[in-house]
Amino acid sequence: MRVVTQQEIGGPEVLHVEEAQTPSPLPSEVLVAVRATGLNPVDAAIRSGGFPVFGRPPFVLGWDVSGVVTEVVPGVNRFQVGDEVYGMPLFPRPAGAYAEFVAAPSRQLALKPRSIDHVHAGALPLAGLTAWQALVDVADVQQGQRVLVHAAGGGVGHLAVQIAKHLGAYVIGTASAGKHEFVRDLGADEVVDYRAVDFTEAVHDVDVVLELVGGDYGTRSIEVLRTGGLLVTAVERDNADLAARTRAAGRRFAGITVEPDGAGLERLAELVDAGRLRVHVEHALPLEDAAKAHALLESGLRGKVVLTI
Amino acid sequence: MRVVTQQEIGGPEVLHVEEAQTPSPLPSEVLVAVRATGLNPVDAAIRSGGFPVFGRPPFVLGWDVSGVVTEVVPGVNRFQVGDEVYGMPLFPRPAGAYAEFVAAPSRQLALKPRSIDHVHAGALPLAGLTAWQALVDVADVQQGQRVLVHAAGGGVGHLAVQIAKHLGAYVIGTASAGKHEFVRDLGADEVVDYRAVDFTEAVHDVDVVLELVGGDYGTRSIEVLRTGGLLVTAVERDNADLAARTRAAGRRFAGITVEPDGAGLERLAELVDAGRLRVHVEHALPLEDAAKAHALLESGLRGKVVLTI
Repeated sequence: MRVVTQQEIGGPEVLHVEEAQTPSPLPSEVLVAVRATGLNPVDAAIRSGGFPVFGRPPFVLGWDVSGVVTEVVPGVNRFQVGDEVYGMPLFPRPAGAYAEFVAAPSRQLALKPRSIDHVHAGALPLAGLTAWQALVDVADVQQGQRVLVHAAGGGVGHLAVQIAKHLGAYVIGTASAGKHEFVRDLGADEVVDYRAVDFTEAVHDVDVVLELVGGDYGTRSIEVLRTGGLLVTAVERDNADLAARTRAAGRRFAGITVEPDGAGLERLAELVDAGRLRVHVEHALPLEDAAKAHALLESGLRGKVVLTI
Repeated sequence: MRVVTQQEIGGPEVLHVEEAQTPSPLPSEVLVAVRATGLNPVDAAIRSGGFPVFGRPPFVLGWDVSGVVTEVVPGVNRFQVGDEVYGMPLFPRPAGAYAEFVAAPSRQLALKPRSIDHVHAGALPLAGLTAWQALVDVADVQQGQRVLVHAAGGGVGHLAVQIAKHLGAYVIGTASAGKHEFVRDLGADEVVDYRAVDFTEAVHDVDVVLELVGGDYGTRSIEVLRTGGLLVTAVERDNADLAARTRAAGRRFAGITVEPDGAGLERLAELVDAGRLRVHVEHALPLEDAAKAHALLESGLRGKVVLTI
C-alpha cells in the first residue's frame, strides 16, 4: 500500500509517498481502508521534531481516519466488513494514518456520521475529541456559562464553538477579522478581533477559557476568568509556571491531551447527524500532496486540511 | 525495574526475572507502580507460541494491572499521583505488566474498587471485562433469561456467573464436582458435573451459552440453546465451522475478544464495591515465582492466579 513517510526530521518537504506493508489487525482490531485522513498541528510538530514521541524517523504520521472496514478479526462484534467508520486510533502511539490502510482497535472507532462524507468525517476525530474532552469531560460546561474559545476559527476552535453552544453556553471567540463571519456562522455570540482589540479589555467574567494558541495567550487569559473559573489549555499543558500563576490568581488550570475515545466519537457523530455540529474542510488534497497539505496546515487556516485516498 | 521476561518460546520454565528500563508514559498516559498483575490463559498461550501476536521473544507478558499512579504526564486529568488504579492497558498490544511499572493510557484504567486489595483488583480486569463484554455488550442478557456458563469455576467463568446473576438471569454452570460448592456460592442456580452427566441432556432451552472450554463444548452447546439463542465463545472465535453449524441450526454465534475499556472497568468496580461481584484469587505469588504461577495457571484451578510486587 502507499503511505506518506519521512526519512528525516524537517519541513513539509521531508514528506514522501512510498510503498509499505499493509498492516495486520490484531485480535480486537479491524482493518480500515482509509478514504480520508485529517491533518492536525501535532502532525507538523512531530514531523519537525517538536514532539518526539516516536524517536527518530522513518515513521508514518497521522491518526484521523475515515474509511471502510475491509477486515474484521474474528472476535470483534462492533463492526462488519463494509461498515463506514471514523476514529483516532492509538494516539499518541503510532497509527500511521497517512496511508491506504490502518489497523485500529475496534473501541477506538465509531460508525461514521451518516450525513457527511469521508472527507469531512476524516477531519473530525482528533479535533472534535479535543474540543469534546476539554469542554465536556474536563470543564463540564453548563447551560448559561460564559466560554471563551481562542483561535475560534481553527481546527479545534471551530468545533469547540459549536459544542459549547450545544451545551448552552454564551460563547465568545477570538479570531482574525477575516474569520469573523465564519465564527459567527458557527454560532458564536461574540467574536473579538485579537489584532484590533486587547481581548483582556474586551472580555470579562468568563467561566471557561479554551486556550489553543500559545505564546502569552494563557497568561493573559487568567484575568478574563471569573474567580474560580477554569483555564483549559491544549497547547501549554506542560507549563507549570502558567498553572501556578492561574492558581495563585484564584482560578483553576487544566492542561489537556486528546485521548482515543469510541464513546466520544459516538456523541460527536450524533451531534453531526442532528445538524448541531459541522466540520469545515478548507482544503482536501490527495495523499501525494502531503507536503503541500502540511504547508497549508501551518498557514493558520479556517477549519481543517485533509488528505484523500 | 524488575520484569519477568522470556528469551524463547516454551513451557513455564522459560520465564525469568531480569532488569529492564522503566517505561516512559507518553502524553495521555500515566505510569503505574504495579502491586499485582493477574495471569490469564492468553499469557500461557503467548508464552508457548499458541498466540503469536508479538513475534519472537524476548518480550514481557501481562496486561492485568492493579497499582498506584506514580507519574501523570501533563495533559491527563483523569488521575493524580497516588491514585489506586486498575486496568488492562493496550491489550493485545504489548503492555508488559509482569513488571514493577507499566505505562498505560489513562482511559484504559479506572479507580480500583475501594473494597478490595490490589491482589484481588489485579485479578479482575481481563477476566472481568471478558465476562462483562460477553454478557452485556454482546449478549445483552435480560432479566429472566437462562444463561449457561461453561467452566463456571474458572477465571472468567466465576465472574460471569455473578454478572449474569446481577443481570437477573437464571444461571447454570458446568464445573467439576470439586468446584460445585464454590460455583453455588457465587449464585449459580444449577451446577452440572460435566464428568458425571452429559450436559446436553441435563440442560435445555438456554438463551445464552458462554463457552470458555474449547474442544467439543461449542458444538455440543448448540443443542442446549433455544431456537434463536446465542452461543458466545471466547475460545473458538476463529472457528468458522462452529459458527456455520450454529447458524444452520437456527441459533446465533458470536466469537469474542476482550478489549481495553475504561468504562467497563468502572462498571465492574461499582459491582465489586456494591458487594455484587467478588474475585476469587486461588494463588498469589511473588514476581520471582512466575514460572510456578504459570504451572498453576495451566492446572485448571478455581478463580485466578496473581503475581505480586
